[in-house]
Amino acid sequence: PSVKIYAITSTYKRPEQKAELTRLSHMIKHIPSFHWVVIEDSKGKTPLVSNFLKKSGLNVTHLCKKNGKRIGHGPKDLLTRNFALNWVRNHLARKEKGIVYFMDDDNTYDLRLFEEMRTTKIAAVWPVGLVGKVLYEGPVVCRGERVQKWRTGWKVEKRKFKVDMAGFCVHTDLLLQKPDVTFKDVATLEDDFLVDLGLTPKTIEGKHCDEVLVWHTRTEVTNISHEKYAIARYNATLIEV
Amino acid sequence: PSVKIYAITSTYKRPEQKAELTRLSHMIKHIPSFHWVVIEDSKGKTPLVSNFLKKSGLNVTHLCKKNGKRIGHGPKDLLTRNFALNWVRNHLARKEKGIVYFMDDDNTYDLRLFEEMRTTKIAAVWPVGLVGKVLYEGPVVCRGERVQKWRTGWKVEKRKFKVDMAGFCVHTDLLLQKPDVTFKDVATLEDDFLVDLGLTPKTIEGKHCDEVLVWHTRTEVTNISHEKYAIARYNATLIEV
Repeated sequence: PSVKIYAITSTYKRPEQKAELTRLSHMIKHIPSFHWVVIEDSKGKTPLVSNFLKKSGLNVTHLCKKNGKRIGHGPKDLLTRNFALNWVRNHLARKEKGIVYFMDDDNTYDLRLFEEMRTTKIAAVWPVGLVGKVLYEGPVVCRGERVQKWRTGWKVEKRKFKVDMAGFCVHTDLLLQKPDVTFKDVATLEDDFLVDLGLTPKTIEGKHCDEVLVWHTRTEVTNISHEKYAIARYNATLIEV
Repeated sequence: PSVKIYAITSTYKRPEQKAELTRLSHMIKHIPSFHWVVIEDSKGKTPLVSNFLKKSGLNVTHLCKKNGKRIGHGPKDLLTRNFALNWVRNHLARKEKGIVYFMDDDNTYDLRLFEEMRTTKIAAVWPVGLVGKVLYEGPVVCRGERVQKWRTGWKVEKRKFKVDMAGFCVHTDLLLQKPDVTFKDVATLEDDFLVDLGLTPKTIEGKHCDEVLVWHTRTEVTNISHEKYAIARYNATLIEV
């Protein structure tokens, strides 16, 4: 059987949430040996997400955790991601191994990405499209599995791993060897995370450096300025959106 | 065999295009008896879209047509949609029937929508989420197949069919009976199109009026203000995004 992928998705209530989860679930339905860890940024699990996940028929674990307020450039989804990360550490079946990946609910993934990441021995990186104010960021020249050149548009000198959250995965063996490493409240959290795990740009595995298989797409916030008027006028039972 | 769906998608070159097509293709891969008519808003077919569609393995027709400049509130994708609509009229296999649907490359679809639309006898409507400055728009109370109540946030009195482009489909029998009806250069083009086809709010079929199965999601335009800098600094061959 192929190596299992544990994909951690942090999600929060907004008008576009159900659409995003629907779209993502179509993609996930195509992936074998996949465990979707969905963590809501909320005090309790919401009926919308609970019902959606039940109906989806996917192999899912549903968690919730309230994120703290963001201060300064502090990263989004800090507490949710760390909670889900530790859930994976604590709930791996005995001797089971796998790959952990952080999968946003609004990004776009090529299905080949998941086959590539299954070959990861310790931790791997790859380019991400539409992020960091450039067309793509991350490793762009590799020789064998070693990254020769990185590309980014921000904090060029400071970041050892010039990679977005969608641009790396880590083997569970490494996560269990370093049980205390989680994301920190800094702007360069991906970089710090990989450094804290003991990785260096020379030891990390570079995958498909010549092809973009994941895009950091973002969905526009919907203008619903006429909704109040519609509610008053139609006075119908609201249906779930 | 089930009724074939002809879905017409107008698409244009932009940084997010490949991501949108990738995401949409994952959804389409789940739909049986489906013909995807992709029309590029361009003078010629582009290598990106040609290669993408070839690799997709989907049942596709690839067309191109340059849209005119938009004047005032004139609709987007007018010439592309009409060209593809007439392509379907002219290329239906003899005696073959089907359903025509206009499927934007950035919207989100629940797979059940396509099963619902196959039961259409003449033309059908349903609610659409995240459109018209309201949470959802379209038929919201139906009795049997007759729409009792519509909901919208704009041109409430003027529009007979308060429905977005994603909120209706038409049987090919009707399109062939009215060979000259196409979209006009007006803001209420969906409404005018259905009226021109001879439909009325009393004859149109209302589907799943109590459930949103399609969302008018929009993808944010990507900020690539650092791309020039990245190109100058890294001087690497650009990879396709």
